[in-house]
Amino acid sequence: MSAIDLNADLGEGFGRWRLTDDEGLLSVVTSANVACGFHAGDAATMRRVCALAAERGVTIGAQVSYRDLAGFGRRAMDVPSAELAAEVAYQIGALEVFARAAGARVAYVKPHGALYNRVVRDEEQAAAVVEGVLLAGPALPVLGLPGSRLLELAGKAGLGAVPEAFADRAYTDAGTLVPRGQEGAVVEDPGAVVERSVGLACHGRVTARSGASVEVRARSLCVHGDTPGAVDLARRVRRRLEESGVRVGAFA
Amino acid sequence: MSAIDLNADLGEGFGRWRLTDDEGLLSVVTSANVACGFHAGDAATMRRVCALAAERGVTIGAQVSYRDLAGFGRRAMDVPSAELAAEVAYQIGALEVFARAAGARVAYVKPHGALYNRVVRDEEQAAAVVEGVLLAGPALPVLGLPGSRLLELAGKAGLGAVPEAFADRAYTDAGTLVPRGQEGAVVEDPGAVVERSVGLACHGRVTARSGASVEVRARSLCVHGDTPGAVDLARRVRRRLEESGVRVGAFA
Amino acid sequence: MSAIDLNADLGEGFGRWRLTDDEGLLSVVTSANVACGFHAGDAATMRRVCALAAERGVTIGAQVSYRDLAGFGRRAMDVPSAELAAEVAYQIGALEVFARAAGARVAYVKPHGALYNRVVRDEEQAAAVVEGVLLAGPALPVLGLPGSRLLELAGKAGLGAVPEAFADRAYTDAGTLVPRGQEGAVVEDPGAVVERSVGLACHGRVTARSGASVEVRARSLCVHGDTPGAVDLARRVRRRLEESGVRVGAFA
Amino acid sequence: MSAIDLNADLGEGFGRWRLTDDEGLLSVVTSANVACGFHAGDAATMRRVCALAAERGVTIGAQVSYRDLAGFGRRAMDVPSAELAAEVAYQIGALEVFARAAGARVAYVKPHGALYNRVVRDEEQAAAVVEGVLLAGPALPVLGLPGSRLLELAGKAGLGAVPEAFADRAYTDAGTLVPRGQEGAVVEDPGAVVERSVGLACHGRVTARSGASVEVRARSLCVHGDTPGAVDLARRVRRRLEESGVRVGAFA
Repeated sequence: MSAIDLNADLGEGFGRWRLTDDEGLLSVVTSANVACGFHAGDAATMRRVCALAAERGVTIGAQVSYRDLAGFGRRAMDVPSAELAAEVAYQIGALEVFARAAGARVAYVKPHGALYNRVVRDEEQAAAVVEGVLLAGPALPVLGLPGSRLLELAGKAGLGAVPEAFADRAYTDAGTLVPRGQEGAVVEDPGAVVERSVGLACHGRVTARSGASVEVRARSLCVHGDTPGAVDLARRVRRRLEESGVRVGAFA
Repeated sequence: MSAIDLNADLGEGFGRWRLTDDEGLLSVVTSANVACGFHAGDAATMRRVCALAAERGVTIGAQVSYRDLAGFGRRAMDVPSAELAAEVAYQIGALEVFARAAGARVAYVKPHGALYNRVVRDEEQAAAVVEGVLLAGPALPVLGLPGSRLLELAGKAGLGAVPEAFADRAYTDAGTLVPRGQEGAVVEDPGAVVERSVGLACHGRVTARSGASVEVRARSLCVHGDTPGAVDLARRVRRRLEESGVRVGAFA
Repeated sequence: MSAIDLNADLGEGFGRWRLTDDEGLLSVVTSANVACGFHAGDAATMRRVCALAAERGVTIGAQVSYRDLAGFGRRAMDVPSAELAAEVAYQIGALEVFARAAGARVAYVKPHGALYNRVVRDEEQAAAVVEGVLLAGPALPVLGLPGSRLLELAGKAGLGAVPEAFADRAYTDAGTLVPRGQEGAVVEDPGAVVERSVGLACHGRVTARSGASVEVRARSLCVHGDTPGAVDLARRVRRRLEESGVRVGAFA
Repeated sequence: MSAIDLNADLGEGFGRWRLTDDEGLLSVVTSANVACGFHAGDAATMRRVCALAAERGVTIGAQVSYRDLAGFGRRAMDVPSAELAAEVAYQIGALEVFARAAGARVAYVKPHGALYNRVVRDEEQAAAVVEGVLLAGPALPVLGLPGSRLLELAGKAGLGAVPEAFADRAYTDAGTLVPRGQEGAVVEDPGAVVERSVGLACHGRVTARSGASVEVRARSLCVHGDTPGAVDLARRVRRRLEESGVRVGAFA
């Protein structure tokens, strides 16, 4: 029987601003990537989201980012390694307080936005993220793209390296993501997203943009939470996975 | 035999900017109030200062502040309790990571600047700071002004409440600080500062601005580190305390 | 025939976050209080809102704030006068660029949030805001609460002092606002808001919470834009004012 | 007779922190690149530096940067064009207020740090900076590296394109800068810096690292202000230029 984790970005508001439907998502996902204040996520929001997640048995992960509120962490930055490692550790530590206060703990780390994309290939920044995770203490698993430098270096460092897939993103024949901005990069049809989730979870395969079936081994599926209807779609994905005999549960 | 702690604010640079002579101060003081990023103290600096402090056996404390880099935490702010408590916890958690990575731990909490002054009398904010400390986990002692609401509420909450004194600040007959800005609020003469330190540590007394001798019970003396000659003065204070038979050591 | 201005806060998003329905509001109001980056309003949003406002003939004002993104400018701060004056001028100057690029200009200044409330009574901060407006150049009128220190000092400095009223806020018998947080501080019924608008615009009077009719002389009505239905309500207010023979137009 | 401008970065403190010896530098240079708040430079500092510069007849330029206080604008960022253009305009507008209040005006624009280096080759960001300058109003000249995309695009847009040289940086045979971090990238010997300044100003030539004499046409020399002895060195450079018959004066 297959097992899959469902993860989503949460707590991505800041101060007066809200973005994600945290309550809704926490009723569906098994892992919550909680924003830690660098791209989003003020302290009070972090506290609230950790409390809710713990209450519902959702695993808490640190969604670490470049320090860039104005750009929501979506602008790649040439941050020197020592600074990046320290910034990653800082964010994990800050979140740990709220996870612990809720009777839980930070159980994994996932880079956000431009940092997520950068550490797919950038050896130096990938190493800095791993260093930051190690600095932060107990060996936390890292969630990322299969084949990324990040997962490779995390594995070498003795950390769990957890690959994830995206049911709503188009894949190339090589099993990599079609870059956003390219035509058809995002799968809009909800029914297709649901079916792709099942294919990924049950068979480790997805239909590439070319029509070919490609292998994508993932232990977690990322569902998006910042669009209208996102929670409903996530719910459909989960139900269909369970109907297909997939055990939906946190990896950490 | 009397015992006294010497504490100083450290790591109060930010990015490219430096303020405190961290290396110099760490060779003198027994407790380091490390800035946690809200009024000063970027992540890389926090890491560096924690490593140095641990290496030299100096106890690490979290110097928590209002979120105000532009004002260096010196502008009082009406922060709602829930936000303030979460912000305090956030800062402690972030620092904890670097203390732990250095083989140490955060051993106490001291509010900075305008927050320090506000919680002398402001019941609501004092309670929020205590709530933040409790959120952050293991019951950390709180360092503050004798007679402050902060120490009173910390004590009631079961936290250590550690009073501190300032050898370079003038006192009123009531044993409170003469407000900065008033004439003679700061004791400029280094010799006088040294002697007042001894009086505070050995006898729990200091000569008030009026000339009267007043009681000021303190377990720690705060030495300032952001002026030229500050490290030398701190060194003279420590030497003279030791010559007077005072045991200089961390309270935590 | 009476004349009244309708003003609303606009551009109060930041980066990825949106708050106000800028397009909707700009189809109703005659004056746009544009956020200038200190409590909300990134540069790209400021540019966009200024372009839209100019296109629709809506007058542009600078909504200046404490430097407090995390608190949305709603936390009163003890900012020293020299800093506050410079910060006010900075914000006006930044907005001026986008107003000018759109073929318009910044035509007035209105403090936001906690600063707005503070300068009702705080002489020092009110004077600092006036100094900031004078620094910024051409003598811009200031929009604020009737009877506030801000308007008093603006008038003394030779600036236009424009009083505004709130149709959706309860008034005391003294003609001041019932503080938020008190019961009945906000008028929830849309029909009542519409009628109060007419009373304020046509007769300079409003029914106080006590039931008494009190005088409130205002040249502008502030409509809120951050709640669902806000734009519809603003539209109803405007239509009803026009049906009542009030000329709705910018004061500046 | 040759003419040369001396420019330096000024006002690069932030809040409590100071970096540059603004008073000292303003007694030597003819153009002041004033930090505008994105990498350094709070509003009160901007006001103070503009007042000083105007008093001493030093031309004021806007030193625009990525939004990155923590990294002092030294971390290259992938900022989308529309955001970058707006951020550049925002900074110019904010500075304009203080220049105008001092009876002067912003007379040119110079990118700072990582942005300065990026627009040497990055077409998109160079175009965004030019767009930002055009947005800001009167056609301001742009100061940058000879041969950079920035100066090329500024020229095409009808803006003044002013090349600058660095007497304390090593040059390649192609007349470009030896990257920092490479051996010998910085000329440490003050006497050599002084002589190179004269060669650049009088003959448009400098001795490359290889020993060859290469052409470097510059209308301005950048002197650094953030090291001890910087002001003294700048003064020696200026004196020696004047003794060599070079007219030292602002380009704008």
